[in-house]
Amino acid sequence: MQLATVAHPAGTSAAVLDGQTWRALPAPDLSAYLAAGPPASALAAAGPALPGAVPVLPLPAPRKVICCGLNYAEHIRETGRELPTHPTLFTKFADSLAGPEADLVLPPGLQVDWEAELAVVVGATLRRADRSTALAGIAGYTVANDISVRDWQYRTLEWFQGKAWDAATPVGPVVVTPEEVDPAAGLEVICRVNGEQVQRDNTRTLVFDPADLLAYISTFTVLRPGDLVLTGTPGGIGAARQPPRFLADGDLVETEIPGIGRLCNTVRFTN
Amino acid sequence: MQLATVAHPAGTSAAVLDGQTWRALPAPDLSAYLAAGPPASALAAAGPALPGAVPVLPLPAPRKVICCGLNYAEHIRETGRELPTHPTLFTKFADSLAGPEADLVLPPGLQVDWEAELAVVVGATLRRADRSTALAGIAGYTVANDISVRDWQYRTLEWFQGKAWDAATPVGPVVVTPEEVDPAAGLEVICRVNGEQVQRDNTRTLVFDPADLLAYISTFTVLRPGDLVLTGTPGGIGAARQPPRFLADGDLVETEIPGIGRLCNTVRFTN
Repeated sequence: MQLATVAHPAGTSAAVLDGQTWRALPAPDLSAYLAAGPPASALAAAGPALPGAVPVLPLPAPRKVICCGLNYAEHIRETGRELPTHPTLFTKFADSLAGPEADLVLPPGLQVDWEAELAVVVGATLRRADRSTALAGIAGYTVANDISVRDWQYRTLEWFQGKAWDAATPVGPVVVTPEEVDPAAGLEVICRVNGEQVQRDNTRTLVFDPADLLAYISTFTVLRPGDLVLTGTPGGIGAARQPPRFLADGDLVETEIPGIGRLCNTVRFTN
Repeated sequence: MQLATVAHPAGTSAAVLDGQTWRALPAPDLSAYLAAGPPASALAAAGPALPGAVPVLPLPAPRKVICCGLNYAEHIRETGRELPTHPTLFTKFADSLAGPEADLVLPPGLQVDWEAELAVVVGATLRRADRSTALAGIAGYTVANDISVRDWQYRTLEWFQGKAWDAATPVGPVVVTPEEVDPAAGLEVICRVNGEQVQRDNTRTLVFDPADLLAYISTFTVLRPGDLVLTGTPGGIGAARQPPRFLADGDLVETEIPGIGRLCNTVRFTN
Protein backbone atom coordinates (compact mmCIF):
# COMPACT_ATOMS: atom_id res chain seq x y z
CA MET A 1 0.00 0.00 0.00
CA GLN A 2 1.25 3.50 -0.81
CA LEU A 3 0.44 6.48 1.40
CA ALA A 4 1.24 10.11 0.72
CA THR A 5 0.45 13.69 1.48
CA VAL A 6 -0.89 15.07 -1.78
CA ALA A 7 -1.51 18.55 -3.08
CA HIS A 8 -4.69 18.83 -5.17
CA PRO A 9 -6.66 21.79 -6.50
CA ALA A 10 -8.67 22.14 -3.27
CA GLY A 11 -5.76 21.86 -0.79
CA THR A 12 -3.67 19.06 0.69
CA SER A 13 -4.75 15.71 2.07
CA ALA A 14 -3.40 12.47 3.39
CA ALA A 15 -4.08 9.94 0.65
CA VAL A 16 -3.80 6.29 -0.29
CA LEU A 17 -3.11 4.98 -3.77
CA ASP A 18 -5.94 2.88 -5.21
CA GLY A 19 -4.70 1.55 -8.53
CA GLN A 20 -3.62 4.72 -10.33
CA THR A 21 -5.84 7.01 -8.23
CA TRP A 22 -5.09 8.89 -5.03
CA ARG A 23 -8.04 8.65 -2.64
CA ALA A 24 -8.46 10.98 0.33
CA LEU A 25 -7.78 9.90 3.90
CA PRO A 26 -9.42 11.88 6.74
CA ALA A 27 -6.49 14.19 7.61
CA PRO A 28 -4.75 17.17 5.99
CA ASP A 29 -1.44 15.28 5.80
CA LEU A 30 0.19 11.97 6.75
CA SER A 31 1.63 13.42 9.98
CA ALA A 32 -1.88 14.16 11.22
CA TYR A 33 -3.22 10.88 9.80
CA LEU A 34 -0.66 8.74 11.62
CA ALA A 35 -0.97 10.77 14.84
CA ALA A 36 -4.71 10.09 14.94
CA GLY A 37 -4.16 6.33 15.05
CA PRO A 38 -5.20 5.13 11.61
CA PRO A 39 -7.28 2.03 10.94
CA ALA A 40 -5.64 -1.26 9.96
CA SER A 41 -6.56 -0.72 6.31
CA ALA A 42 -6.21 2.78 4.91
CA LEU A 43 -7.91 1.66 1.72
CA ALA A 44 -11.05 0.63 3.58
CA ALA A 45 -11.17 4.12 5.16
CA ALA A 46 -10.42 5.97 1.95
CA GLY A 47 -12.75 8.67 0.72
CA PRO A 48 -13.25 10.06 -2.77
CA ALA A 49 -10.68 10.15 -5.53
CA LEU A 50 -8.55 13.31 -5.70
CA PRO A 51 -8.10 14.27 -9.36
CA GLY A 52 -4.88 16.15 -10.01
CA ALA A 53 -3.28 14.94 -6.77
CA VAL A 54 0.53 15.24 -6.60
CA PRO A 55 2.60 13.83 -3.72
CA VAL A 56 4.37 16.49 -1.64
CA LEU A 57 6.47 16.16 1.54
CA PRO A 58 4.70 13.18 3.13
CA LEU A 59 5.47 14.02 6.76
CA PRO A 60 5.45 17.78 7.33
CA ALA A 61 5.40 17.64 11.13
CA PRO A 62 7.45 14.84 12.70
CA ARG A 63 8.29 15.63 16.30
CA LYS A 64 11.56 13.71 15.94
CA VAL A 65 13.81 13.26 12.94
CA ILE A 66 16.69 11.03 13.96
CA CYS A 67 19.46 9.99 11.60
CA CYS A 68 21.99 7.21 11.68
CA GLY A 69 25.48 7.76 10.31
CA LEU A 70 28.03 5.13 9.33
CA ASN A 71 25.59 2.29 8.70
CA TYR A 72 26.73 0.78 5.38
CA ALA A 73 29.95 -1.23 5.53
CA GLU A 74 31.39 0.29 2.34
CA HIS A 75 30.66 3.89 3.41
CA ILE A 76 32.22 3.20 6.80
CA ARG A 77 35.38 1.97 5.08
CA GLU A 78 35.54 5.08 2.85
CA THR A 79 35.57 7.28 5.96
CA GLY A 80 38.46 5.19 7.34
CA ARG A 81 36.53 3.74 10.29
CA GLU A 82 35.87 0.26 11.71
CA LEU A 83 32.42 -1.40 11.84
CA PRO A 84 30.53 0.11 14.77
CA THR A 85 29.08 -1.69 17.77
CA HIS A 86 26.48 1.05 18.35
CA PRO A 87 24.63 3.27 15.88
CA THR A 88 25.94 6.83 15.49
CA LEU A 89 22.89 9.10 15.85
CA PHE A 90 22.20 12.76 15.23
CA THR A 91 19.11 14.84 14.53
CA LYS A 92 17.35 17.12 12.11
CA PHE A 93 14.14 19.10 12.58
CA ALA A 94 10.79 19.05 10.81
CA ASP A 95 12.01 22.38 9.38
CA SER A 96 14.92 20.53 7.74
CA LEU A 97 12.62 18.59 5.42
CA ALA A 98 11.77 19.40 1.81
CA GLY A 99 9.37 17.96 -0.74
CA PRO A 100 10.22 15.27 -3.30
CA GLU A 101 10.61 17.78 -6.15
CA ALA A 102 11.50 20.91 -4.18
CA ASP A 103 14.45 23.07 -5.05
CA LEU A 104 17.07 22.90 -2.31
CA VAL A 105 17.80 26.56 -1.68
CA LEU A 106 20.99 27.32 0.22
CA PRO A 107 23.30 30.32 0.49
CA PRO A 108 26.29 30.22 -1.85
CA GLY A 109 29.76 29.16 -0.73
CA LEU A 110 28.86 25.99 1.21
CA GLN A 111 30.25 22.48 0.64
CA VAL A 112 26.94 20.73 -0.07
CA ASP A 113 26.99 16.95 -0.43
CA TRP A 114 24.51 14.13 -1.12
CA GLU A 115 23.54 11.15 1.07
CA ALA A 116 20.81 8.89 -0.36
CA GLU A 117 18.97 7.03 2.41
CA LEU A 118 16.10 4.74 3.25
CA ALA A 119 13.87 6.46 5.82
CA VAL A 120 11.61 4.66 8.29
CA VAL A 121 8.25 6.11 9.30
CA VAL A 122 7.23 5.27 12.85
CA GLY A 123 3.63 4.02 13.17
CA ALA A 124 3.27 3.35 16.90
CA THR A 125 4.38 4.73 20.23
CA LEU A 126 7.64 2.97 21.02
CA ARG A 127 9.39 3.17 24.41
CA ARG A 128 12.00 0.61 25.41
CA ALA A 129 10.78 -1.55 22.55
CA ASP A 130 12.44 -4.82 21.67
CA ARG A 131 13.25 -5.65 18.04
CA SER A 132 9.95 -7.40 17.30
CA THR A 133 7.86 -4.61 18.87
CA ALA A 134 9.88 -2.05 16.92
CA LEU A 135 9.40 -3.96 13.67
CA ALA A 136 5.64 -4.15 14.26
CA GLY A 137 5.66 -0.38 14.94
CA ILE A 138 6.91 0.60 11.48
CA ALA A 139 4.25 2.40 9.43
CA GLY A 140 6.30 2.26 6.25
CA TYR A 141 9.35 3.31 4.31
CA THR A 142 10.22 6.31 2.21
CA VAL A 143 13.19 7.87 0.43
CA ALA A 144 15.35 10.67 1.85
CA ASN A 145 18.51 12.52 0.99
CA ASP A 146 20.44 13.60 4.06
CA ILE A 147 21.91 16.62 2.25
CA SER A 148 24.93 17.69 4.31
CA VAL A 149 26.83 20.96 4.53
CA ARG A 150 30.29 19.43 5.02
CA ASP A 151 32.21 22.56 6.02
CA TRP A 152 29.73 23.22 8.84
CA GLN A 153 29.48 19.50 9.71
CA TYR A 154 33.21 19.34 10.37
CA ARG A 155 33.66 22.75 12.05
CA THR A 156 33.25 21.05 15.43
CA LEU A 157 33.00 17.53 16.85
CA GLU A 158 29.23 17.45 16.43
CA TRP A 159 27.76 16.99 12.95
CA PHE A 160 24.36 18.56 13.74
CA GLN A 161 25.09 22.09 12.42
CA GLY A 162 25.94 20.66 8.99
CA LYS A 163 22.85 18.45 8.94
CA ALA A 164 19.93 20.67 9.94
CA TRP A 165 19.76 23.39 7.28
CA ASP A 166 16.14 24.41 6.72
CA ALA A 167 14.28 22.84 3.78
CA ALA A 168 17.34 20.98 2.47
CA THR A 169 16.53 17.31 3.25
CA PRO A 170 14.12 15.99 0.60
CA VAL A 171 11.76 13.19 1.67
CA GLY A 172 9.13 11.20 -0.24
CA PRO A 173 7.42 10.93 -2.61
CA VAL A 174 5.35 8.18 -0.94
CA VAL A 175 5.36 5.96 2.14
CA VAL A 176 5.19 2.28 1.23
CA THR A 177 3.83 -0.01 3.91
CA PRO A 178 5.90 -2.93 5.21
CA GLU A 179 3.91 -5.71 3.53
CA GLU A 180 5.13 -4.37 0.16
CA VAL A 181 8.82 -3.70 0.80
CA ASP A 182 11.35 -5.39 3.09
CA PRO A 183 14.71 -3.71 3.72
CA ALA A 184 16.09 -6.99 5.12
CA ALA A 185 15.32 -8.73 1.81
CA GLY A 186 17.06 -5.86 0.04
CA LEU A 187 16.21 -2.45 -1.39
CA GLU A 188 18.57 -0.67 -3.77
CA VAL A 189 19.49 2.87 -2.61
CA ILE A 190 20.67 5.02 -5.49
CA CYS A 191 21.84 8.60 -5.92
CA ARG A 192 22.48 10.32 -9.25
CA VAL A 193 23.84 13.81 -9.84
CA ASN A 194 22.94 15.24 -13.25
CA GLY A 195 22.21 11.70 -14.37
CA GLU A 196 25.52 10.21 -13.22
CA GLN A 197 25.19 7.46 -10.62
CA VAL A 198 27.23 8.44 -7.54
CA GLN A 199 25.86 6.03 -4.93
CA ARG A 200 24.34 2.58 -5.13
CA ASP A 201 24.11 -0.03 -2.39
CA ASN A 202 21.55 -2.38 -0.91
CA THR A 203 19.78 -2.18 2.46
CA ARG A 204 20.71 -5.86 2.97
CA THR A 205 24.15 -4.55 3.98
CA LEU A 206 22.91 -2.19 6.71
CA VAL A 207 24.85 -2.74 9.94
CA PHE A 208 21.79 -1.66 11.97
CA ASP A 209 18.46 -2.38 10.29
CA PRO A 210 15.26 -0.35 10.82
CA ALA A 211 14.05 -2.48 13.75
CA ASP A 212 17.51 -2.29 15.40
CA LEU A 213 17.48 1.50 15.11
CA LEU A 214 13.95 2.01 16.44
CA ALA A 215 14.56 -0.34 19.37
CA TYR A 216 17.89 1.32 20.21
CA ILE A 217 16.50 4.87 20.05
CA SER A 218 13.46 3.88 22.11
CA THR A 219 15.81 2.96 24.97
CA PHE A 220 16.38 6.66 25.68
CA THR A 221 13.48 8.50 24.04
CA VAL A 222 9.93 7.71 23.04
CA LEU A 223 9.11 7.47 19.33
CA ARG A 224 5.63 8.37 18.14
CA PRO A 225 3.56 7.88 14.99
CA GLY A 226 4.92 10.07 12.22
CA ASP A 227 8.45 10.32 13.57
CA LEU A 228 11.15 9.71 11.00
CA VAL A 229 14.38 7.72 11.25
CA LEU A 230 16.94 7.98 8.46
CA THR A 231 19.01 4.82 8.21
CA GLY A 232 22.35 6.12 6.91
CA THR A 233 23.94 6.43 3.50
CA PRO A 234 25.96 4.09 1.28
CA GLY A 235 29.48 4.77 0.04
CA GLY A 236 30.03 7.33 -2.69
CA ILE A 237 29.56 10.68 -0.95
CA GLY A 238 31.27 13.65 -2.60
CA ALA A 239 33.41 14.53 0.43
CA ALA A 240 35.15 11.13 0.28
CA ARG A 241 36.21 11.53 -3.36
CA GLN A 242 39.73 12.44 -4.43
CA PRO A 243 39.47 15.34 -5.02
CA PRO A 244 36.27 16.03 -3.05
CA ARG A 245 33.23 16.90 -5.13
CA PHE A 246 30.42 19.11 -3.92
CA LEU A 247 27.11 20.13 -5.44
CA ALA A 248 27.00 23.19 -7.72
CA ASP A 249 24.19 25.65 -8.40
CA GLY A 250 21.70 23.99 -10.73
CA ASP A 251 22.80 20.41 -10.08
CA LEU A 252 19.97 17.88 -10.24
CA VAL A 253 20.06 15.32 -7.42
CA GLU A 254 17.99 12.19 -7.96
CA THR A 255 17.52 9.88 -5.01
CA GLU A 256 15.82 6.58 -5.77
CA ILE A 257 14.78 3.39 -4.05
CA PRO A 258 13.09 1.14 -6.64
CA GLY A 259 9.85 -0.14 -5.09
CA ILE A 260 9.35 3.12 -3.19
CA GLY A 261 10.05 6.03 -5.52
CA ARG A 262 12.37 8.80 -6.57
CA LEU A 263 13.20 12.31 -5.37
CA CYS A 264 14.23 14.90 -7.99
CA ASN A 265 15.71 18.03 -6.44
CA THR A 266 17.65 20.89 -7.96
CA VAL A 267 20.24 22.74 -5.89
CA ARG A 268 19.86 26.53 -5.93
CA PHE A 269 22.48 28.75 -4.33
CA THR A 270 21.09 32.16 -3.49
CA ASN A 271 21.37 34.69 -0.69
CA MET B 1 9.84 40.39 35.35
CA GLN B 2 9.46 36.69 36.15
CA LEU B 3 7.37 34.39 33.97
CA ALA B 4 6.52 30.75 34.64
CA THR B 5 4.22 27.89 33.92
CA VAL B 6 2.50 27.21 37.23
CA ALA B 7 0.46 24.34 38.57
CA HIS B 8 -2.44 25.44 40.72
CA PRO B 9 -5.48 23.65 42.15
CA ALA B 10 -7.53 24.22 38.95
CA GLY B 11 -4.85 23.22 36.42
CA THR B 12 -1.81 24.85 34.85
CA SER B 13 -1.34 28.34 33.50
CA ALA B 14 1.24 30.68 32.12
CA ALA B 15 1.82 33.23 34.85
CA VAL B 16 3.68 36.39 35.77
CA LEU B 17 4.98 37.22 39.22
CA ASP B 18 3.40 40.35 40.73
CA GLY B 19 5.19 41.01 43.99
CA GLN B 20 4.82 37.66 45.78
CA THR B 21 1.76 36.58 43.77
CA TRP B 22 1.53 34.58 40.55
CA ARG B 23 -1.08 36.08 38.25
CA ALA B 24 -2.57 34.21 35.30
CA LEU B 25 -1.58 34.89 31.70
CA PRO B 26 -4.01 33.85 28.93
CA ALA B 27 -2.41 30.50 27.99
CA PRO B 28 -2.09 27.05 29.60
CA ASP B 29 1.71 27.31 29.67
CA LEU B 30 4.59 29.59 28.66
CA SER B 31 5.17 27.68 25.40
CA ALA B 32 1.65 28.54 24.26
CA TYR B 33 1.91 32.08 25.70
CA LEU B 34 5.11 32.89 23.79
CA ALA B 35 3.86 31.20 20.59
CA ALA B 36 0.78 33.45 20.60
CA GLY B 37 2.92 36.60 20.45
CA PRO B 38 2.60 38.11 23.91
CA PRO B 39 2.14 41.82 24.60
CA ALA B 40 5.07 44.03 25.52
CA SER B 41 4.10 43.93 29.19
CA ALA B 42 2.92 40.62 30.62
CA LEU B 43 1.96 42.36 33.86
CA ALA B 44 -0.47 44.67 32.05
CA ALA B 45 -2.15 41.59 30.51
CA ALA B 46 -2.19 39.56 33.70
CA GLY B 47 -5.42 38.15 35.02
CA PRO B 48 -6.39 37.09 38.54
CA ALA B 49 -4.03 35.87 41.22
CA LEU B 50 -3.51 32.10 41.35
CA PRO B 51 -3.41 31.03 45.00
CA GLY B 52 -1.32 27.91 45.57
CA ALA B 53 0.56 28.34 42.28
CA VAL B 54 3.84 26.41 42.01
CA PRO B 55 6.24 26.78 39.07
CA VAL B 56 6.62 23.64 36.96
CA LEU B 57 8.56 23.02 33.72
CA PRO B 58 8.24 26.50 32.16
CA LEU B 59 8.44 25.43 28.50
CA PRO B 60 6.75 22.06 27.98
CA ALA B 61 6.68 22.24 24.18
CA PRO B 62 9.70 23.88 22.54
CA ARG B 63 10.01 22.82 18.92
CA LYS B 64 13.79 23.12 19.18
CA VAL B 65 16.09 22.52 22.10
CA ILE B 66 19.63 23.27 20.97
CA CYS B 67 22.63 22.97 23.26
CA CYS B 68 26.13 24.36 23.08
CA GLY B 69 29.06 22.33 24.36
CA LEU B 70 32.52 23.57 25.25
CA ASN B 71 31.59 27.18 25.94
CA TYR B 72 33.38 28.03 29.21
CA ALA B 73 37.13 28.42 28.95
CA GLU B 74 37.85 26.39 32.11
CA HIS B 75 35.58 23.50 31.08
CA ILE B 76 37.20 23.45 27.64
CA ARG B 77 40.61 23.18 29.26
CA GLU B 78 39.47 20.28 31.52
CA THR B 79 38.44 18.31 28.43
CA GLY B 80 41.90 18.96 26.94
CA ARG B 81 40.74 21.13 24.03
CA GLU B 82 41.62 24.56 22.63
CA LEU B 83 39.26 27.56 22.58
CA PRO B 84 36.81 27.04 19.70
CA THR B 85 36.22 29.31 16.72
CA HIS B 86 32.66 27.98 16.24
CA PRO B 87 30.10 26.77 18.78
CA THR B 88 29.72 23.00 19.15
CA LEU B 89 25.99 22.29 18.89
CA PHE B 90 23.78 19.29 19.57
CA THR B 91 20.12 18.78 20.38
CA LYS B 92 17.61 17.50 22.86
CA PHE B 93 13.83 17.12 22.49
CA ALA B 94 10.88 18.62 24.35
CA ASP B 95 10.58 15.08 25.78
CA SER B 96 14.05 15.46 27.30
CA LEU B 97 12.91 18.19 29.69
CA ALA B 98 11.89 17.81 33.33
CA GLY B 99 10.43 20.15 35.93
CA PRO B 100 12.45 22.17 38.45
CA GLU B 101 11.77 19.73 41.30
CA ALA B 102 11.15 16.54 39.32
CA ASP B 103 12.88 13.29 40.14
CA LEU B 104 15.23 12.33 37.31
CA VAL B 105 14.27 8.71 36.69
CA LEU B 106 16.75 6.65 34.70
CA PRO B 107 17.50 2.94 34.38
CA PRO B 108 20.31 1.71 36.63
CA GLY B 109 23.84 1.14 35.39
CA LEU B 110 24.37 4.40 33.49
CA GLN B 111 27.16 6.95 33.98
CA VAL B 112 24.98 9.96 34.78
CA ASP B 113 26.69 13.34 35.11
CA TRP B 114 25.74 16.96 35.85
CA GLU B 115 26.09 20.08 33.67
CA ALA B 116 24.67 23.29 35.16
CA GLU B 117 23.77 25.79 32.45
CA LEU B 118 22.16 29.12 31.66
CA ALA B 119 19.32 28.56 29.17
CA VAL B 120 18.02 31.19 26.76
CA VAL B 121 14.33 31.36 25.86
CA VAL B 122 13.68 32.59 22.33
CA GLY B 123 10.97 35.26 22.10
CA ALA B 124 10.85 36.07 18.38
CA THR B 125 11.14 34.37 15.02
CA LEU B 126 14.82 34.53 14.13
CA ARG B 127 16.19 33.62 10.70
CA ARG B 128 19.65 34.76 9.61
CA ALA B 129 19.57 37.23 12.48
CA ASP B 130 22.54 39.43 13.30
CA ARG B 131 23.71 39.79 16.89
CA SER B 132 21.54 42.80 17.70
CA THR B 133 18.39 41.22 16.22
CA ALA B 134 19.15 38.02 18.13
CA LEU B 135 19.66 39.94 21.37
CA ALA B 136 16.33 41.75 20.90
CA GLY B 137 14.69 38.36 20.25
CA ILE B 138 15.48 36.90 23.67
CA ALA B 139 12.36 36.44 25.82
CA GLY B 140 14.33 35.63 28.92
CA TYR B 141 16.69 33.36 30.79
CA THR B 142 16.21 30.26 32.88
CA VAL B 143 18.26 27.54 34.58
CA ALA B 144 18.93 24.09 33.12
CA ASN B 145 20.98 21.05 33.91
CA ASP B 146 22.15 19.25 30.79
CA ILE B 147 22.21 15.88 32.57
CA SER B 148 24.39 13.60 30.44
CA VAL B 149 24.66 9.83 30.18
CA ARG B 150 28.40 9.70 29.57
CA ASP B 151 28.75 6.05 28.56
CA TRP B 152 26.14 6.57 25.80
CA GLN B 153 27.51 10.02 24.92
CA TYR B 154 30.92 8.52 24.15
CA ARG B 155 29.78 5.28 22.47
CA THR B 156 30.05 7.01 19.09
CA LEU B 157 31.34 10.30 17.68
CA GLU B 158 27.99 12.03 18.20
CA TRP B 159 26.98 13.06 21.73
CA PHE B 160 23.22 13.13 21.04
CA GLN B 161 22.36 9.65 22.35
CA GLY B 162 23.85 10.52 25.74
CA LYS B 163 22.05 13.86 25.88
CA ALA B 164 18.42 13.15 24.98
CA TRP B 165 17.14 10.76 27.65
CA ASP B 166 13.47 11.44 28.32
CA ALA B 167 12.57 13.64 31.31
CA ALA B 168 16.16 13.96 32.53
CA THR B 169 17.03 17.61 31.73
CA PRO B 170 15.53 19.84 34.44
CA VAL B 171 14.60 23.39 33.43
CA GLY B 172 13.15 26.30 35.38
CA PRO B 173 11.81 27.30 37.81
CA VAL B 174 11.11 30.68 36.17
CA VAL B 175 12.02 32.69 33.09
CA VAL B 176 13.49 36.07 33.97
CA THR B 177 13.18 38.76 31.31
CA PRO B 178 16.30 40.50 29.95
CA GLU B 179 15.77 43.84 31.67
CA GLU B 180 16.37 42.08 35.02
CA VAL B 181 19.38 39.88 34.27
CA ASP B 182 22.33 40.29 31.90
CA PRO B 183 24.60 37.32 31.18
CA ALA B 184 27.23 39.69 29.73
CA ALA B 185 27.38 41.55 33.05
CA GLY B 186 27.74 38.21 34.79
CA LEU B 187 25.54 35.50 36.26
CA GLU B 188 26.95 32.85 38.58
CA VAL B 189 26.19 29.27 37.41
CA ILE B 190 26.39 26.81 40.28
CA CYS B 191 25.88 23.06 40.68
CA ARG B 192 25.79 21.23 44.00
CA VAL B 193 25.51 17.48 44.58
CA ASN B 194 24.18 16.57 48.02
CA GLY B 195 25.10 20.08 49.15
CA GLU B 196 28.70 19.96 47.90
CA GLN B 197 29.54 22.59 45.28
CA VAL B 198 30.85 20.83 42.16
CA GLN B 199 30.59 23.62 39.57
CA ARG B 200 30.74 27.39 39.79
CA ASP B 201 31.61 29.84 37.05
CA ASN B 202 30.29 33.09 35.61
CA THR B 203 28.53 33.71 32.32
CA ARG B 204 30.95 36.62 31.74
CA THR B 205 33.45 33.94 30.66
CA LEU B 206 31.21 32.38 27.96
CA VAL B 207 33.10 32.03 24.68
CA PHE B 208 29.81 32.43 22.73
CA ASP B 209 27.20 34.52 24.52
CA PRO B 210 23.42 34.11 24.09
CA ALA B 211 23.19 36.57 21.18
CA ASP B 212 26.15 34.90 19.43
CA LEU B 213 24.48 31.49 19.75
CA LEU B 214 21.05 32.59 18.52
CA ALA B 215 22.54 34.45 15.56
CA TYR B 216 24.78 31.50 14.63
CA ILE B 217 21.98 28.92 14.86
CA SER B 218 19.62 31.15 12.88
CA THR B 219 22.05 30.97 9.95
CA PHE B 220 20.92 27.40 9.25
CA THR B 221 17.56 27.00 10.99
CA VAL B 222 14.75 29.27 12.08
CA LEU B 223 14.21 29.82 15.80
CA ARG B 224 10.74 30.53 17.10
CA PRO B 225 9.18 31.85 20.31
CA GLY B 226 9.51 29.25 23.06
CA ASP B 227 12.55 27.51 21.59
CA LEU B 228 15.31 26.87 24.08
CA VAL B 229 19.08 27.24 23.73
CA LEU B 230 21.35 25.86 26.47
CA THR B 231 24.60 27.80 26.62
CA GLY B 232 27.06 25.17 27.84
CA THR B 233 28.44 24.15 31.20
CA PRO B 234 31.36 25.35 33.35
CA GLY B 235 34.25 23.20 34.50
CA GLY B 236 33.71 20.63 37.23
CA ILE B 237 31.76 17.84 35.53
CA GLY B 238 32.02 14.41 37.12
CA ALA B 239 33.50 12.70 34.05
CA ALA B 240 36.56 15.00 34.13
CA ARG B 241 37.43 14.16 37.74
CA GLN B 242 40.23 11.80 38.72
CA PRO B 243 38.75 9.30 39.32
CA PRO B 244 35.51 10.09 37.44
CA ARG B 245 32.46 10.62 39.64
CA PHE B 246 28.92 9.87 38.50
CA LEU B 247 25.55 10.40 40.14
CA ALA B 248 24.17 7.69 42.43
CA ASP B 249 20.60 6.70 43.20
CA GLY B 250 19.15 9.25 45.61
CA ASP B 251 21.69 12.00 44.89
CA LEU B 252 20.27 15.52 45.12
CA VAL B 253 21.38 17.79 42.28
CA GLU B 254 20.91 21.51 42.86
CA THR B 255 21.43 23.83 39.91
CA GLU B 256 21.36 27.52 40.71
CA ILE B 257 21.77 30.85 38.99
CA PRO B 258 21.32 33.61 41.61
CA GLY B 259 18.91 36.17 40.16
CA ILE B 260 16.98 33.48 38.29
CA GLY B 261 16.40 30.54 40.61
CA ARG B 262 17.31 27.02 41.63
CA LEU B 263 16.47 23.51 40.42
CA CYS B 264 16.34 20.71 43.03
CA ASN B 265 16.25 17.27 41.44
CA THR B 266 16.80 13.85 42.93
CA VAL B 267 18.25 11.07 40.80
CA ARG B 268 16.26 7.81 40.87
CA PHE B 269 17.58 4.68 39.23
CA THR B 270 14.82 2.23 38.45
CA ASN B 271 13.88 -0.15 35.64
